[in-house]
Amino acid sequence: MNLTVYLAGQIHDNWREEIANLADEKQLPLTFVGPQTDHDRSDNIGEEILGKQPDSYYKDNAASDINNFRTQVLLQKADIVIALFGEKYKQWNTAMDAAAAIEMNKPTILVRPSSLIHPLKELSNKANVTVETLEQALEVIHYIYD
Amino acid sequence: MNLTVYLAGQIHDNWREEIANLADEKQLPLTFVGPQTDHDRSDNIGEEILGKQPDSYYKDNAASDINNFRTQVLLQKADIVIALFGEKYKQWNTAMDAAAAIEMNKPTILVRPSSLIHPLKELSNKANVTVETLEQALEVIHYIYD
Amino acid sequence: MNLTVYLAGQIHDNWREEIANLADEKQLPLTFVGPQTDHDRSDNIGEEILGKQPDSYYKDNAASDINNFRTQVLLQKADIVIALFGEKYKQWNTAMDAAAAIEMNKPTILVRPSSLIHPLKELSNKANVTVETLEQALEVIHYIYD
Amino acid sequence: MNLTVYLAGQIHDNWREEIANLADEKQLPLTFVGPQTDHDRSDNIGEEILGKQPDSYYKDNAASDINNFRTQVLLQKADIVIALFGEKYKQWNTAMDAAAAIEMNKPTILVRPSSLIHPLKELSNKANVTVETLEQALEVIHYIYD
Amino acid sequence: MNLTVYLAGQIHDNWREEIANLADEKQLPLTFVGPQTDHDRSDNIGEEILGKQPDSYYKDNAASDINNFRTQVLLQKADIVIALFGEKYKQWNTAMDAAAAIEMNKPTILVRPSSLIHPLKELSNKANVTVETLEQALEVIHYIYD
Amino acid sequence: MNLTVYLAGQIHDNWREEIANLADEKQLPLTFVGPQTDHDRSDNIGEEILGKQPDSYYKDNAASDINNFRTQVLLQKADIVIALFGEKYKQWNTAMDAAAAIEMNKPTILVRPSSLIHPLKELSNKANVTVETLEQALEVIHYIYD
Amino acid sequence: MNLTVYLAGQIHDNWREEIANLADEKQLPLTFVGPQTDHDRSDNIGEEILGKQPDSYYKDNAASDINNFRTQVLLQKADIVIALFGEKYKQWNTAMDAAAAIEMNKPTILVRPSSLIHPLKELSNKANVTVETLEQALEVIHYIYD
Amino acid sequence: MNLTVYLAGQIHDNWREEIANLADEKQLPLTFVGPQTDHDRSDNIGEEILGKQPDSYYKDNAASDINNFRTQVLLQKADIVIALFGEKYKQWNTAMDAAAAIEMNKPTILVRPSSLIHPLKELSNKANVTVETLEQALEVIHYIYD
Repeated sequence: MNLTVYLAGQIHDNWREEIANLADEKQLPLTFVGPQTDHDRSDNIGEEILGKQPDSYYKDNAASDINNFRTQVLLQKADIVIALFGEKYKQWNTAMDAAAAIEMNKPTILVRPSSLIHPLKELSNKANVTVETLEQALEVIHYIYD
Repeated sequence: MNLTVYLAGQIHDNWREEIANLADEKQLPLTFVGPQTDHDRSDNIGEEILGKQPDSYYKDNAASDINNFRTQVLLQKADIVIALFGEKYKQWNTAMDAAAAIEMNKPTILVRPSSLIHPLKELSNKANVTVETLEQALEVIHYIYD
Repeated sequence: MNLTVYLAGQIHDNWREEIANLADEKQLPLTFVGPQTDHDRSDNIGEEILGKQPDSYYKDNAASDINNFRTQVLLQKADIVIALFGEKYKQWNTAMDAAAAIEMNKPTILVRPSSLIHPLKELSNKANVTVETLEQALEVIHYIYD
Repeated sequence: MNLTVYLAGQIHDNWREEIANLADEKQLPLTFVGPQTDHDRSDNIGEEILGKQPDSYYKDNAASDINNFRTQVLLQKADIVIALFGEKYKQWNTAMDAAAAIEMNKPTILVRPSSLIHPLKELSNKANVTVETLEQALEVIHYIYD
Repeated sequence: MNLTVYLAGQIHDNWREEIANLADEKQLPLTFVGPQTDHDRSDNIGEEILGKQPDSYYKDNAASDINNFRTQVLLQKADIVIALFGEKYKQWNTAMDAAAAIEMNKPTILVRPSSLIHPLKELSNKANVTVETLEQALEVIHYIYD
Repeated sequence: MNLTVYLAGQIHDNWREEIANLADEKQLPLTFVGPQTDHDRSDNIGEEILGKQPDSYYKDNAASDINNFRTQVLLQKADIVIALFGEKYKQWNTAMDAAAAIEMNKPTILVRPSSLIHPLKELSNKANVTVETLEQALEVIHYIYD
Repeated sequence: MNLTVYLAGQIHDNWREEIANLADEKQLPLTFVGPQTDHDRSDNIGEEILGKQPDSYYKDNAASDINNFRTQVLLQKADIVIALFGEKYKQWNTAMDAAAAIEMNKPTILVRPSSLIHPLKELSNKANVTVETLEQALEVIHYIYD
Repeated sequence: MNLTVYLAGQIHDNWREEIANLADEKQLPLTFVGPQTDHDRSDNIGEEILGKQPDSYYKDNAASDINNFRTQVLLQKADIVIALFGEKYKQWNTAMDAAAAIEMNKPTILVRPSSLIHPLKELSNKANVTVETLEQALEVIHYIYD
């Protein structure tokens, strides 16, 4: 049984590759999808497609249209969502994607360091499972195939 | 036509009273509901009802059960959601409540300072309206009654 | 049994008053809601609340946020939708509101002159009932109370 | 990941072929579906299958049954909707299909010339993304695969 | 707790009055709604509102628009549906309304004579409760208030 | 694009084979599913699996469980529903399946002889398309592939 | 804000009165509904309304129709569900009602003694809050009004 | 037509293998999924992935997160649910999974010994079909393919 996994979360390191490698090692039949991970491209995609905007507010507005379009297409295709929080950044998109996924009844795994237990306690409570590492997240999915 | 408005957002100042006063001045028939605004009570409610927990992780876990229960009851009753972001704090509950409300098709107004335009651009794009002040949020609701 | 009726359609004459008067004459327990009917206010509401925008595109963008917010709140409260098409104007909002209402399973009455039979045939086919006059629309609702 | 794209909009030029060619050039794994594009066939399909009708009103009525049946089948299969508005015609079916698609949570791209910004501002606001050319619409979809 | 009960079924005798009287005797706080029970009015309502139609097919077509509109409004308001089958007539509207109500998760009681056990066995199986008399149907509702 | 078509309706002649043959001739990529067409087997399936029942009422009860289970599985898989009414029999299962399918948003074609126009007018009005012959029903589906 | 609370669970002691008394003491504006608590009446209601059945299997079958009808009506009216498990009895109806309520997005509180932690761990995990006493359950609801 | 069948129920004997063998013999194109059947692994999976917990309550809490995640993923993939009750154990997970499946409109077969008719009467009433043996459950599914 093939499953599609949406990887919500920050786009500043290569955690998505890492999780894909772990899945390969375990030979799990998973397809990973997610947001645009090239940060500049994600910020500029509005102007890239729609042309120069009046100022940074409108540039952001245009980019968010297209980033949200992408997320909606791929989230609707997903069987499972993994949402990763790190120690840096505001990560409001991660919170937004995780909350939307839970509301859409997508089985959702939250990954966060123990330092974020308190501020993420309500989101963690709504997610199906909360873990601290990518290995643990993948073990949770692996368990489906046992 | 009476409308119920859920006020999502930080609980560190009296913005909910302020918005209620503004609504009174304009004589708008609105009922405001929202999360527990006594921060300590919100953090301790798990232990208060369920008793002492092994450590702070489990204390948080117990509190979040009850805080999420409250939010689910009141959000389901709401006709409109206002979600306020300030400049401080992580505010992941605000992002979570706003995203859940949007997914539930609740008409949603985002209030955030201009300094947060960039990090909130995708959530702002999914909300119906984004404004910078409470006065503006209430003007948007006032417009329904014009 | 009180019913709320959303009146979608152009805002260039006083057809909403006319229908309210007809309902009063028949003593039907109906509450009418609808879009902002002051055309200038509807076009300017974005700048009025959010301030001056860079140009007319962004002015329109800001106004549509707030007009759509109003429509979503009131359409969700409606038990019945009447959508009126006249011979002038593009009236894409009317088509949009009627189609959205039908998709939301709101019982919907289309009012259009016979000159528009052909271009509105598919929308007419999706609506519950199509009539040519406001009197007929109200007779359809009156029939519920017989 | 194959995606099915419903192409809503006028049927008076070959824009659907054009977009299919662009997708071929970019080697995007897209399947395009849409309404009947032979205008006469679309208008006559009711009489063609059900036989001669009393007059043009009933001819239109019969045709719209079958056109709406086709649209419902194909729209339910679609992952994405592109709705194109041109400068001519009333295009109420385009507005209707776009609004229905948005209400069904189909990620939707609006294509319209800048001359139509004002009359389409509310529909544009409800769509995920609004662009002016077919190339831009396809770039938005291309972005999903980046 | 007031409950609204939709009374689906044939319109050729006064069973709706009978059930209302029984409810009055038991002092149950029920509001009864249902289809138009004046058979001629139900058949003629299309021409009455929309004017003379080309022939009886189109007359039926016009009437059914308005009868279905009425049913949709009132069925959406109902907490409970009672669907009565008698020994005469085809009663396809009764079957249609009962099946639609069940699909909408409306708690549904079927009333039918024992002579119809076999042909109604699948519909009876989908309904919540099947009884043979109006008294029994009302006892089932009475049981809610015990 | 392969489509699955549920064939609701009476099981007393070979109309399902006929329609399958027509689809083969036209080389349409359709998969047909439907109820058990061996009438005796359909009536006896309850006792066949569950054993002898106290009397015919309970025999019918047991059979309907299993017939409804089958219908629910296959109707959920269907992209399109064709519901055929003939001149004989009560055909309440056909009315029930058609109404349930329409409520589930399955695009639905009604096939009925002109003699049944009047008693089926409301169901016909809720279906997407009504025709008189199997050939016409298949032409409606064929039109999707044009 | 008045809230309706469905009290699922065993019917062998007066825990429902106890919780109503606690709510009265705290002056909470709650309306309590629930299953039939007269055990004999609940078991006999099928025969009481439908007459003598062939044996106890069919007696149970008839009773369950009417008990489930009652539950469906009242559960749909509920804003909150409390499901109580005691140490005795199989209590499968409690598990069934709690699981159905959770699936219907009703905010749900589970009450169970600590001796049942292990066998109820998955249901407890799906409920919003799990407590051990009725006082605690009511404190959780009280917290909404703070 | 391939169908996926979720096998809810106790994990203390090899009934899932038995049913798979029966399906093989009948050459039915079924894929069976279900919960973790290694009881110890199911109880320990929380600590296995998340590490040692403070006591057995928290160990159970952690395990149930992951068991429920697995169930949600697989139940959403299922076309049919078979829920088996035996004479031993509390089996609340079986009742919970069956009730959730029914609420999700999954066609559901209950398997239970005749000794459990009375305590399971309401759940049996909500399921599509109730049988006493695995052979019968598979005959019900086999009937779909006849």
